Amino acid sequence: MNISFLGLGSMGAAMATNLLKAGFPLTVYNRTAAKAEPLRQLGATVAASPAEAVRTADLVFTMVTNDQALEEITTGPDGILSTLPLGAIHASCSTVAPDTNRRLAEAHRAHGSFLVASPVFGKPDVAAAGKLWVGSSGATAEVRAQLTPAQAAIGQGIHDFGDDPGAASVAKLCGNFLLGTVIEGMAEALTLAEKCGLDRVGFYEMLTSTLFNNPIYKSYGKLIAEQHYQPVGAPPAIIRKDMNLVVQEAYKNDMPMPFANIIRDRLTATVALGEPDVDWASFAQRVSDDAGLAGK
Amino acid sequence: MNISFLGLGSMGAAMATNLLKAGFPLTVYNRTAAKAEPLRQLGATVAASPAEAVRTADLVFTMVTNDQALEEITTGPDGILSTLPLGAIHASCSTVAPDTNRRLAEAHRAHGSFLVASPVFGKPDVAAAGKLWVGSSGATAEVRAQLTPAQAAIGQGIHDFGDDPGAASVAKLCGNFLLGTVIEGMAEALTLAEKCGLDRVGFYEMLTSTLFNNPIYKSYGKLIAEQHYQPVGAPPAIIRKDMNLVVQEAYKNDMPMPFANIIRDRLTATVALGEPDVDWASFAQRVSDDAGLAGK
Amino acid sequence: MNISFLGLGSMGAAMATNLLKAGFPLTVYNRTAAKAEPLRQLGATVAASPAEAVRTADLVFTMVTNDQALEEITTGPDGILSTLPLGAIHASCSTVAPDTNRRLAEAHRAHGSFLVASPVFGKPDVAAAGKLWVGSSGATAEVRAQLTPAQAAIGQGIHDFGDDPGAASVAKLCGNFLLGTVIEGMAEALTLAEKCGLDRVGFYEMLTSTLFNNPIYKSYGKLIAEQHYQPVGAPPAIIRKDMNLVVQEAYKNDMPMPFANIIRDRLTATVALGEPDVDWASFAQRVSDDAGLAGK
Amino acid sequence: MNISFLGLGSMGAAMATNLLKAGFPLTVYNRTAAKAEPLRQLGATVAASPAEAVRTADLVFTMVTNDQALEEITTGPDGILSTLPLGAIHASCSTVAPDTNRRLAEAHRAHGSFLVASPVFGKPDVAAAGKLWVGSSGATAEVRAQLTPAQAAIGQGIHDFGDDPGAASVAKLCGNFLLGTVIEGMAEALTLAEKCGLDRVGFYEMLTSTLFNNPIYKSYGKLIAEQHYQPVGAPPAIIRKDMNLVVQEAYKNDMPMPFANIIRDRLTATVALGEPDVDWASFAQRVSDDAGLAGK
Repeated sequence: MNISFLGLGSMGAAMATNLLKAGFPLTVYNRTAAKAEPLRQLGATVAASPAEAVRTADLVFTMVTNDQALEEITTGPDGILSTLPLGAIHASCSTVAPDTNRRLAEAHRAHGSFLVASPVFGKPDVAAAGKLWVGSSGATAEVRAQLTPAQAAIGQGIHDFGDDPGAASVAKLCGNFLLGTVIEGMAEALTLAEKCGLDRVGFYEMLTSTLFNNPIYKSYGKLIAEQHYQPVGAPPAIIRKDMNLVVQEAYKNDMPMPFANIIRDRLTATVALGEPDVDWASFAQRVSDDAGLAGK
Repeated sequence: MNISFLGLGSMGAAMATNLLKAGFPLTVYNRTAAKAEPLRQLGATVAASPAEAVRTADLVFTMVTNDQALEEITTGPDGILSTLPLGAIHASCSTVAPDTNRRLAEAHRAHGSFLVASPVFGKPDVAAAGKLWVGSSGATAEVRAQLTPAQAAIGQGIHDFGDDPGAASVAKLCGNFLLGTVIEGMAEALTLAEKCGLDRVGFYEMLTSTLFNNPIYKSYGKLIAEQHYQPVGAPPAIIRKDMNLVVQEAYKNDMPMPFANIIRDRLTATVALGEPDVDWASFAQRVSDDAGLAGK
Repeated sequence: MNISFLGLGSMGAAMATNLLKAGFPLTVYNRTAAKAEPLRQLGATVAASPAEAVRTADLVFTMVTNDQALEEITTGPDGILSTLPLGAIHASCSTVAPDTNRRLAEAHRAHGSFLVASPVFGKPDVAAAGKLWVGSSGATAEVRAQLTPAQAAIGQGIHDFGDDPGAASVAKLCGNFLLGTVIEGMAEALTLAEKCGLDRVGFYEMLTSTLFNNPIYKSYGKLIAEQHYQPVGAPPAIIRKDMNLVVQEAYKNDMPMPFANIIRDRLTATVALGEPDVDWASFAQRVSDDAGLAGK
Repeated sequence: MNISFLGLGSMGAAMATNLLKAGFPLTVYNRTAAKAEPLRQLGATVAASPAEAVRTADLVFTMVTNDQALEEITTGPDGILSTLPLGAIHASCSTVAPDTNRRLAEAHRAHGSFLVASPVFGKPDVAAAGKLWVGSSGATAEVRAQLTPAQAAIGQGIHDFGDDPGAASVAKLCGNFLLGTVIEGMAEALTLAEKCGLDRVGFYEMLTSTLFNNPIYKSYGKLIAEQHYQPVGAPPAIIRKDMNLVVQEAYKNDMPMPFANIIRDRLTATVALGEPDVDWASFAQRVSDDAGLAGK
C-alpha cells in the first residue's frame, strides 16, 4: 500500500514517521521543503508538489493548517485531485469545518476516489509516541476498513463515526472545545485559589492526584499552574481558528454555546495582545490579567 | 477517642457509618431524628440535641446544609460551643464560605477548642465506599494530626492546606466549580454533536474512553449523555448555593470568573423552572432547551 | 436622474415610495412581483429582472435579505452588472458584511461603475415616514455627493463615513448591535423589577420618561414591557444573521465582544425554539424563560 | 419643617445645597467635618454626630457610601434612631440592597418613625442643577406625601413605587444596571468601529445625534469615545458594589442576568487593576485592553 503524506508540521512529521516505522512505503510533501529532510533520511521519498506526491498513491494523508489550505491542496492547481489514481483514499486529518470535508468528499466522488475524515486527538508528543486517538468517518465502512492498518500505525485506538465525512470533524471540534473548557476551568480555579492564599502549584497537584487524575488535566494543568506555556503543542492562533469553527458550527445548527464563546474570546484577546511562541493554553493568563495579577 | 457526628443527610450518614465501622465510639445527632435510626442499629448513641451530642466529645464532625445551619449548630442556643469540652476539635465538613469557617474558628479559640475545616470531595456512593478525598486546614499541624485517624476512616486520601481554616473551604469550592465546568462542557459538546447528527451516547462513550477517561467525566457524563439525572448526588438548589459562594468569594478577592457566572446562572434557571428531585447535573438540560431540543 | 429600486420588502417598499413621492422617475423590481404592484399604481415602472430594471439607470438602490442575495443580484446572471450603464451608482442599502460591499465595489470598479454603501437606520414605520438615518461610504466624495438628493428623500439625515465601502456597513452593524443591547438590557431590568414585585409596565414608563427618554428605548421597551412583539419590524432570523456578522467582524479584527455573543445566542435560542411571526425583540422572552416566568 | 442631611459626598452636598436654596432650615453632618463647611457658609447648622443632627428633625436625608454605613448611621450607637423624634421621616437616598431598606424600615416602625426609600438618579452635576429623578417608596402614601416638597427641591420629578421600602431600591439598582449596559454597549460598538478603521469620536457623534440622541448616551459615550474618564461621577469600586447588589438581588429572586454578570466583572477587573481616580465608565477600557489596544 503506497502512502503519501502531505503537511509535515510538528503533528504531521510525527505521524509520517510512525507510518515509516510501521513499514509503509511513504512519499512526503511539505510546502517548506526543509521539513521533509528528516523523513527522507528515514527512507521517505520527497515530492516537489502534491500532484507529484500522490500520482501512484493508494492512500493520501493530509495534515495542513486550515480549511483553505486543505481545499487548495485537494482541488487547487497541482493538487491531489489532479493526479490521484481512481479508487484511492484521502485521509483528511486536519481540524476543519465539517462542511469542508463534506464538500471535498463530493469532489472525490466526482473524481472516482474517496475522502475519509480522519482527525487525530493528541499533542505532538502523543503523536510521536504513536498514541493518538483517531476518528474516522466518510465513504463506506468498506473503504474505512482499508484505512485501518495505517491509522493503527499512528494511534492507539480508532473510533468510527459512520458514513458522514463531516461527523469525525464534529467530534474533533468538540474535543478541542472540551480541552478549552479544561484550560479555562483550571485557570479560574487555580487563580481563585491563588487569590485566596493557596499555593497555585500545590493545589494543582492535589486536584490532579484526586478528582482530576487524568492526563489532560495533568498536562494542560501543569502549564497553567506554573504559568509557563512551553512546549508549544499548538499556538493560540491555530486553536482560535478551531474555536471559531465550533462557534460557527453551533450557529449553523441553531445552538447557543456560552462556554465556547468565552474560550474563543480568550484566544482572541491572546492573539490581539500578540504572544507568538506559546502554547494555546496560555489564554489562561487572561484570567490572571483580569484579576490584576501580573503573571510571569 | 469519642466522636460525635452532627448532620445525617446522605453524605453525613455514609461518613458516620464508616467511622462506626472503623471502631470509633460514636454519638450522632440529626434534626430529623428518624435519620439517626440506622446508625443506632449499628451501635451509635443518638443524642437529642447538638449540646447533648458533644458533651464528652474529643472530636465533632458536622455535615449540615449551609453556612447558616453551621453557624446555628456551632454558636446557637443548644449548639456545640455550649457544652464542648476544652481542647476538643470540630471537623467542619460542610461546603461553606471560607469566612464562615474562619469566623467559627475564632469562636472556638475563644472557647478553648479548635475548628479544622475538613471538606470532602465525592458523591454519596463514594462516601459510602469510604473513598472520599478529604481536605484539612485550620488550627495547627499538631491539632490536624489528631484528626487524621478519623479522616482516614472516611476517605482514601487527606490533603493538608495549612493553618488557615478558610483554605480547605476554598479548595472545596474550587472543586465543585470544576465539576460544574465538566457538566456544562460535556452538555455543550454532546448537544452540538447531537445537533450535527452524531449519537449522543456513543460520542460520550468515545470521549470517556479516550481523552476524558476519568471517573468524574464518566459519572457526570453518563447522566448528561442519557439525559436522566438519577440518582440524586446533590440537588440543584444546594450546589447553586455553593456556586454563589464561589462567585462571592471571587468578588471579595477582586477576580472575574466568567465560567462560574454561567454555571451559577444555569443552576438558577434550573431552580427557577422548578425541578425538585434531580441531580444538579440536570442543569445540562438548559443547554438542550436553548437549542430547541425538548429533551427527555 | 433615473432611479431603480431592487428589493421591495417592508423597508424597501417604504423607501421606494418616498423616492416616487419626491418626484424621481423610478423603475422597481422584486422577486415576488406582487409586491411591486402598489408602487406601479403610484407611478413606478415594474421590471421583470434586475438586468432589465437597471438598463438605463443613473442610480440603483438595493435592499435585499442578506449577503448572498446581494451578491446574486449584483454579479449573478441577469444581475445589475450585466446591463448597468457606465458611470452609474449602486447604493447598497442591505445590512451585509463590510467585506461584501468591498468585494462588490471592486466588481463595480472593473465594470466602470460605482458602489456606495448606503445602509439605513430605522424600522419600517420610520422608513414610511421618511425619517431614516442614512450612512454613506465608498467610491469618492464626488460620487457620494451625486447620491445625496435621493438619500435625502428617504431620510432625515445623511452621515458620511468616507471612501471605504465597508465603513458604513460597520456602522450599521454596530447600530444593530446597540439595539440588541437595549433589548437585552431592558429585558433584564424589567424582569428583575417584576421578580421583585414592581409593575413591569409602570417601571418601563418611569425609565423611558426619565433617564431613557429616547425613541429607541420607548419603542423597543414597549414591546418588552408588554411582552407583545408586534408589529414585526424585523424577524429574529434576519437580525440573528446581522449579529453573526457582528461577531465574525469582531473575530476578523481580533476583538472579543461579550455582549454581542450573548445577543446572538439569545436570537439563536429564539430561532431554535421556532417563533416565526414576531419582532426580533422577542428574544427578550428568553430572559423571562430563564427566570421561570411563563410570559404571555 | 426641620430637615437634617447626613452624608456630604459630591452627591449629598449638592442635594443639601438645593434644600438650603429652597428655604428649608437645615442641619448637616458628615464624618469628615471639613466637607460640611461650605454648607455652614450657606446657612446650615453643622452637627457633631448623627444623633445630634436629628434631635429635632421632622425629616432626615441620608446619602452614605453603602449598606453597612447606612445601617451604622441609622441603628448604630449615636445613630439616627437614638434621638429621632417620633413621627419623623427618614428619606434613605443611598443605593443599597432592597432588604437593607426593608430591615431599617422595621427598625423605624419599632421606634415610632418612618423610613421612605428615596434613591436619586443622576450624576453630581445633575444633582447640582436640581435635576435629579427621585424614586420614592415605603411607609404609606400619606407619609410619602409629606416628603414631596423636599424631594421637589432636589429633583425634576418624583416617581412613586408604593409601600414596599425595597421597591425604590430595586428601581435604582435597575437604573444603574442599565447605565452599565450603555457603557459596555458603547465600548464594544466604538471599539469595533475603531478596529475596522472608523473614527471613534466621529462615530460616537453620529450615534448620539441620531438613534441614541439622549443625555445618558451623550455623557457616558463622550467619556468612552475620548477614553478620558473625567470628571469622576462615581468611582469604579462604588458602582461595582451596586452591581454586586444587582447580581445578588437576581440570585435571591431566582433570575439569571448575563449582562449584569459581565458588567460586574468588568468593574471587578478595573478594581483589580487599580485605577483610583476615574469615573466608573472607565471599565470601557477593558474592552480595548482585550482587543490589544493600548488606550490612552
